[in-house]
Amino acid sequence: MLSREKTAAFLDQPWVRNGIIVVIIFNAILLGMETSDTLMGFAGPLILGLDAACLSIFVVELVLKFHAQRGKFWRSGWNIFDFLIVGISLVPGAQGFSVLRALRILRLLRVVSVSPNLRRVVEGFIKALPGMGSVFLLMGMLFYIGAVMATKLFKETFPEWFGDLGNSAYTLFQIMTLESWSMGIVRPVMEAYPYAWAFFVPFIMVTTFAVVNLLVGLIVNSMQDAHAAESNQATEDYRDEVLKRLAAIEERLNATQREKVPPAE
Amino acid sequence: MLSREKTAAFLDQPWVRNGIIVVIIFNAILLGMETSDTLMGFAGPLILGLDAACLSIFVVELVLKFHAQRGKFWRSGWNIFDFLIVGISLVPGAQGFSVLRALRILRLLRVVSVSPNLRRVVEGFIKALPGMGSVFLLMGMLFYIGAVMATKLFKETFPEWFGDLGNSAYTLFQIMTLESWSMGIVRPVMEAYPYAWAFFVPFIMVTTFAVVNLLVGLIVNSMQDAHAAESNQATEDYRDEVLKRLAAIEERLNATQREKVPPAE
Amino acid sequence: MLSREKTAAFLDQPWVRNGIIVVIIFNAILLGMETSDTLMGFAGPLILGLDAACLSIFVVELVLKFHAQRGKFWRSGWNIFDFLIVGISLVPGAQGFSVLRALRILRLLRVVSVSPNLRRVVEGFIKALPGMGSVFLLMGMLFYIGAVMATKLFKETFPEWFGDLGNSAYTLFQIMTLESWSMGIVRPVMEAYPYAWAFFVPFIMVTTFAVVNLLVGLIVNSMQDAHAAESNQATEDYRDEVLKRLAAIEERLNATQREKVPPAE
Amino acid sequence: MLSREKTAAFLDQPWVRNGIIVVIIFNAILLGMETSDTLMGFAGPLILGLDAACLSIFVVELVLKFHAQRGKFWRSGWNIFDFLIVGISLVPGAQGFSVLRALRILRLLRVVSVSPNLRRVVEGFIKALPGMGSVFLLMGMLFYIGAVMATKLFKETFPEWFGDLGNSAYTLFQIMTLESWSMGIVRPVMEAYPYAWAFFVPFIMVTTFAVVNLLVGLIVNSMQDAHAAESNQATEDYRDEVLKRLAAIEERLNATQREKVPPAE
Repeated sequence: MLSREKTAAFLDQPWVRNGIIVVIIFNAILLGMETSDTLMGFAGPLILGLDAACLSIFVVELVLKFHAQRGKFWRSGWNIFDFLIVGISLVPGAQGFSVLRALRILRLLRVVSVSPNLRRVVEGFIKALPGMGSVFLLMGMLFYIGAVMATKLFKETFPEWFGDLGNSAYTLFQIMTLESWSMGIVRPVMEAYPYAWAFFVPFIMVTTFAVVNLLVGLIVNSMQDAHAAESNQATEDYRDEVLKRLAAIEERLNATQREKVPPAE
Repeated sequence: MLSREKTAAFLDQPWVRNGIIVVIIFNAILLGMETSDTLMGFAGPLILGLDAACLSIFVVELVLKFHAQRGKFWRSGWNIFDFLIVGISLVPGAQGFSVLRALRILRLLRVVSVSPNLRRVVEGFIKALPGMGSVFLLMGMLFYIGAVMATKLFKETFPEWFGDLGNSAYTLFQIMTLESWSMGIVRPVMEAYPYAWAFFVPFIMVTTFAVVNLLVGLIVNSMQDAHAAESNQATEDYRDEVLKRLAAIEERLNATQREKVPPAE
Repeated sequence: MLSREKTAAFLDQPWVRNGIIVVIIFNAILLGMETSDTLMGFAGPLILGLDAACLSIFVVELVLKFHAQRGKFWRSGWNIFDFLIVGISLVPGAQGFSVLRALRILRLLRVVSVSPNLRRVVEGFIKALPGMGSVFLLMGMLFYIGAVMATKLFKETFPEWFGDLGNSAYTLFQIMTLESWSMGIVRPVMEAYPYAWAFFVPFIMVTTFAVVNLLVGLIVNSMQDAHAAESNQATEDYRDEVLKRLAAIEERLNATQREKVPPAE
Repeated sequence: MLSREKTAAFLDQPWVRNGIIVVIIFNAILLGMETSDTLMGFAGPLILGLDAACLSIFVVELVLKFHAQRGKFWRSGWNIFDFLIVGISLVPGAQGFSVLRALRILRLLRVVSVSPNLRRVVEGFIKALPGMGSVFLLMGMLFYIGAVMATKLFKETFPEWFGDLGNSAYTLFQIMTLESWSMGIVRPVMEAYPYAWAFFVPFIMVTTFAVVNLLVGLIVNSMQDAHAAESNQATEDYRDEVLKRLAAIEERLNATQREKVPPAE
């Protein structure tokens, strides 16, 4: 059996890394081909066999990585992500339920965990989230309040849209995206409750304003990061240079004075 | 009876603050459960009783806060906000009209007035508003002008959409959000008035442009605040340092000269 | 008759300026009331009479302003704007054609030309336009190209949407705003021309990208203006101070040297 | 035959450049007129003849440009663009297939390749693209994953929307633009699969978030470019000035010291 160091070195070799990316992409193409009845009728067993082969490669890679990292394995969110995505295909029932089968295509997301470039982009997305925690919390509250009110007010007459909290939340999400909010939902509701606009129009304004603030926050944060990362290097070099030279001048002036009046001091 | 100082100290204790937050959230869950007929059939009296208990706690908290702050109570917008939200449930008819009952869920918003974090976010939103006063005023004028013109022009043929100023304003709001503006409203109108696009297309362009300018103003303001808050500290420290050192050098040079030629001066 | 100077001074008095704003707003309310059949049945002649009185006041104000400014009158865009808006109500047929009657509410826009605050906002909007001239030109070209292609391709089968260049341009504008673009237009078109998406999807992407670039340009411009206006004053004061002091130090050093070795030079 | 230098000089003359722009615009108007049956019935042969004349001018210009630049011709993307756009009209079948005929209006885009101003705008657009390569790649993956999953899950019941990968990708694009996503697609799907929202709502959130990040990236990049281009010139001039003066002061102090104590060194 391979030592931990050798396994880690093996997994780090460029041809292994790139090979895994090729397998991931090949597997994604296979899963795409599985959606075609023609292709499945023509070469179904081959496609399924190759898919199983790809899965085996992922399992072997994961086992090797676990062998190499042991305890540290679970500290990386990306490893847990890989583990879940590969694991989902190994659940016994996974070949039975169509939903679990459909989730297998999520394996393509492993490209992200393997490619450092895409990893950085996704990590950038995720890092942007906590800064907006409060706005998300506020929006969650707005949706809960809106759903409770809409259910209480319109449940009797429009059970399909506002029958329970779930229905109402979905309908309010649709309204927030502005999809058919007026012709599809609010105008029919106004036929039964003429003042319904007094609930929906403010709801649209407030949620849109919250979304806009999320967006503004995102832009300002990115801008500051970019600003801090870029322009400060040159500025700091310049400032250090100026302060160094000023110190040198002062030192020289002090020296001049000391030479001139040594006994006085 | 408690003194004002003791009451204020009691309300400021962490467990009281957090307890209030727990009661608010618990009350919001209760009000959510009230929307379900099943749960109400099963445990209706219990839910209503707990709701009344929560309300009592809010009333007591408000009375204590008023006792502690007296005249200063009304100076904080958040206190007035709490007072209105709690007060609405105490209006005699409040248990009769379904609209007033539905408003009770607004109590969840008290989480905002209690949590300093969310308070800051909402205060940030509100502070951003006055800077856009002029754009809001302009948009209000655009809507009024648009509503008067649309009512005059299309009232006869499309009373449902443009029957009076209110109808027209609602329809124009729908058009501004781009919801079904063409297939739902403008194409049918153009069948009766072929040049109707000459009213609606400019209206869309102008209001969209105004909204975009609101957004841009919001971004620029936030950016400037962020910029001012962050980068200036380091810059000002550096500048003070440079000016201090230059002054020291000048002072030293003056001293040198004074020593050298004292009688000449 | 009043001298030009006295007329100008009269128009500049605060109570005259504010009085005009009051008349404008009162007139806008009157024109809003005109849209209601009930109010017109009740007090029609009074409303029309007051409207005529307001119009007279505007005409008098305009004549006085013209008297005060003469040749300079036409140099201000706002004066021309006022002249057109008031003039439109004086066109003989204006009381006959409903479109011209509807345009009378545009008088409310005179509030903008009277209030310096709103004037600045609108001038800000207008100043932002030329910087985007090239993007507007490009979008115009995209629309012309799109309209010609759509007319050529789909005219026969969908004359209502793509019958001529005007129809096509309107439909493409609707598609650019994403209103019912797929369910309303492109899916029906794809039933006759299965590859129609290859025209519409790129059209959506390119025009959306152009709109986004307009928006980005607007934000960047506003930001730069704000940046230039605000932060540079402090920076320039500091820089002038540093250079002045450095010059003083050099001057002092030169003086020191001159004193020491006068015969050598 | 003209020498290469003379040809290049001829093509660079202002009247030739402007003449070509006039021909391009005139040709675009002709192609617009071709869409009108009335105009074609009235002056069809004239319009077609003038169109052929314009095409000849483009061919001659392209041949001259090729003669003048030879090998360098293919190095400019704009030349290849011109070549393709003109070439498409010369393909033998081009007069037969209506799609190829419709593509002729793309010649109007030659205005971009001829006018330096528009060229810069388009080059700015294109330069912005690679910086977003990773986000585009991620979105492509999201669409592929979404299309495979949607096809697997909903193919049987909704073959029109999710029949194969192409159909699904188109439907998901429509959903991403928020067009009729709920009333048109997701509500009908939820009637067969009640949990379908658990696929579509996250899909909307993730793709919208990715689009927002594209936008934010675009804004931040533009801002940095603008920032770097503008404010740095003054800053660098100032910094060079400060460093030069500090160096001069040090040099002077060194000189002073050398004069005073020459033997000691």
